[in-house]
Amino acid sequence: MKTIIRFPSPVAIYARASAVGGTEHDGPLGALFDFHDQTDRFGADTWERSEEALSRTVLNLALSRAGESQDEIDLLFAGDLQNQCVASSAGCGSMGIPFCGLYGACSTSCEGLLLASLSLLASRETVRAAVVTTSHNAAAERQFRLPLEYGGQRPPTAQWTATAGGAFLLARSSEPFVKAPSPRISACLVGRAIDSGVTDGANMGAAMAPAAADTLLRFFASPDENPADYDRIVTGDLGTEGSALLSELLRENGLDLLGRHRDCGVLLFDPLKTDVHAGGSGCGCSASVLASLFLPALERGELRRILFLATGALMSPSNLLQGGTVLGIAPLIVLEGGKP
Amino acid sequence: MKTIIRFPSPVAIYARASAVGGTEHDGPLGALFDFHDQTDRFGADTWERSEEALSRTVLNLALSRAGESQDEIDLLFAGDLQNQCVASSAGCGSMGIPFCGLYGACSTSCEGLLLASLSLLASRETVRAAVVTTSHNAAAERQFRLPLEYGGQRPPTAQWTATAGGAFLLARSSEPFVKAPSPRISACLVGRAIDSGVTDGANMGAAMAPAAADTLLRFFASPDENPADYDRIVTGDLGTEGSALLSELLRENGLDLLGRHRDCGVLLFDPLKTDVHAGGSGCGCSASVLASLFLPALERGELRRILFLATGALMSPSNLLQGGTVLGIAPLIVLEGGKP
Repeated sequence: MKTIIRFPSPVAIYARASAVGGTEHDGPLGALFDFHDQTDRFGADTWERSEEALSRTVLNLALSRAGESQDEIDLLFAGDLQNQCVASSAGCGSMGIPFCGLYGACSTSCEGLLLASLSLLASRETVRAAVVTTSHNAAAERQFRLPLEYGGQRPPTAQWTATAGGAFLLARSSEPFVKAPSPRISACLVGRAIDSGVTDGANMGAAMAPAAADTLLRFFASPDENPADYDRIVTGDLGTEGSALLSELLRENGLDLLGRHRDCGVLLFDPLKTDVHAGGSGCGCSASVLASLFLPALERGELRRILFLATGALMSPSNLLQGGTVLGIAPLIVLEGGKP
Repeated sequence: MKTIIRFPSPVAIYARASAVGGTEHDGPLGALFDFHDQTDRFGADTWERSEEALSRTVLNLALSRAGESQDEIDLLFAGDLQNQCVASSAGCGSMGIPFCGLYGACSTSCEGLLLASLSLLASRETVRAAVVTTSHNAAAERQFRLPLEYGGQRPPTAQWTATAGGAFLLARSSEPFVKAPSPRISACLVGRAIDSGVTDGANMGAAMAPAAADTLLRFFASPDENPADYDRIVTGDLGTEGSALLSELLRENGLDLLGRHRDCGVLLFDPLKTDVHAGGSGCGCSASVLASLFLPALERGELRRILFLATGALMSPSNLLQGGTVLGIAPLIVLEGGKP
């Protein structure tokens, strides 16, 4: 019940790609991304459609890395922050692949990776699955807060929704076309939506940290699990605020991550160079950093086992206006690298 | 590749519940629903929060039918039409069950049922899965079109977003607590997002019919499949407009459904009594009709095998304003009833 789901055999991420905008390319990981557009426009005329184009671009890049076409992909999981997830449905979702739309806010990358894995394990007919998620700073600001042109001021706890996307192609590790040593998913734990009473839509770190804590405490409650077994314990976008809160919450509950915690929202930008307040966020934050930084490190064997939790703030502006709260959610996957 | 996913063993829907608003209760299926609120308010102060309450209500009803508590459910799939799917996350999603948020618009019920099934087949640790989806007429009108108070006129092709919800509890058929003859899911086919160039957000039938046709043509392309093997071929909410278009599209492609087609959006209302223009729609339309009409008929053995396709219009108002189109999508499940 509500336990870690251990895969009977691992699922490989046999190809991946990342694409980002200008600010992200200017950050410390800039050289690692597969593609960037300094203008953030990706060839489109509106920011919302820029994100659709980003969605297609990043999936096309992953397909070309694998030497495959979209016609060979059996199943696609995708989601984004735009209302009705239109960047995904009109973006990669319009490439003819059987499609399951997801809404996990910034946790979508991990939600997609775990659902794609379960689908592959359940069904022999499903050979190749794709997972794509994106976010776009300008589209997100307009929808959740205010258009950038307004020049609204953001409080220090606010995070920067990354203009970024990640695409992942998955298959059962035993498939002949999967080249060792592809990074492999060996287990997952689905997140619970946690309500800590946060009503400040500009402090997502405070809303998400309790969800990350809930997932990690449930994971490490298993007698078979210990933080020492993981080279890194990576969260998607707690940012500096949420990361500090996570430490505090875990300490109160007797869990020490032994210095292995990293956060994609903190890694994406250098605060001395780019002021993003509390760090990066958005679906594409965790996805692009996973694709460009952690998966290559696993493939090279520099990292052997990591936990990856994409953290999402299930936040509706109209719901907040009606007195609601920001929920957090943090699904988790176990990733292994090097030779199997 | 992109073939029908046939389950190695069936997944049972061992409990279900439906809940609706006043207009739906006044319709021809009114007496079949488990719960209704004539005021559409479900005890809340805003329409959006009414839908959250509806979401929790319908899951609680299904749990009570099963004699189970939420703590026994391992996994929850839910989605709705509200921006950020907040009716689901703040609704049933806040009941402490590990949660995967979905966005499939009105196709969510079927997307959830197939993903829950695949999760159960993949993972022995996952014993019980829940699928919940809702829609609310007033919340949807305000978000997608205009607040009801505005008194805007709707064209004849417009559909009525149902105030309705459905909840389903699933487990592998072999589980000891699954009582025969629970209806069983034996196969599924994931939908593709189909763009037919429809730009009229008030004609979702025209956008969704090609997607339903795409799914049915792909399904019946299999030499093992024939419409004569199915007592009913049920779509979620094509409405009268979309149903007529579906017939036409299938006829052009040489597929005859032999009079077995039914549409939940057409069944939900009696046009002589309630003018809903082209019929019902919304995530809750297919879910509530499946729960109240088709699953009981399968359980009683009156229907032996049916196809169930929830049809979704992936429509974003802002995307339409920017020149985008309404995409359709239609995932499919195969349901069997009577003695296994």
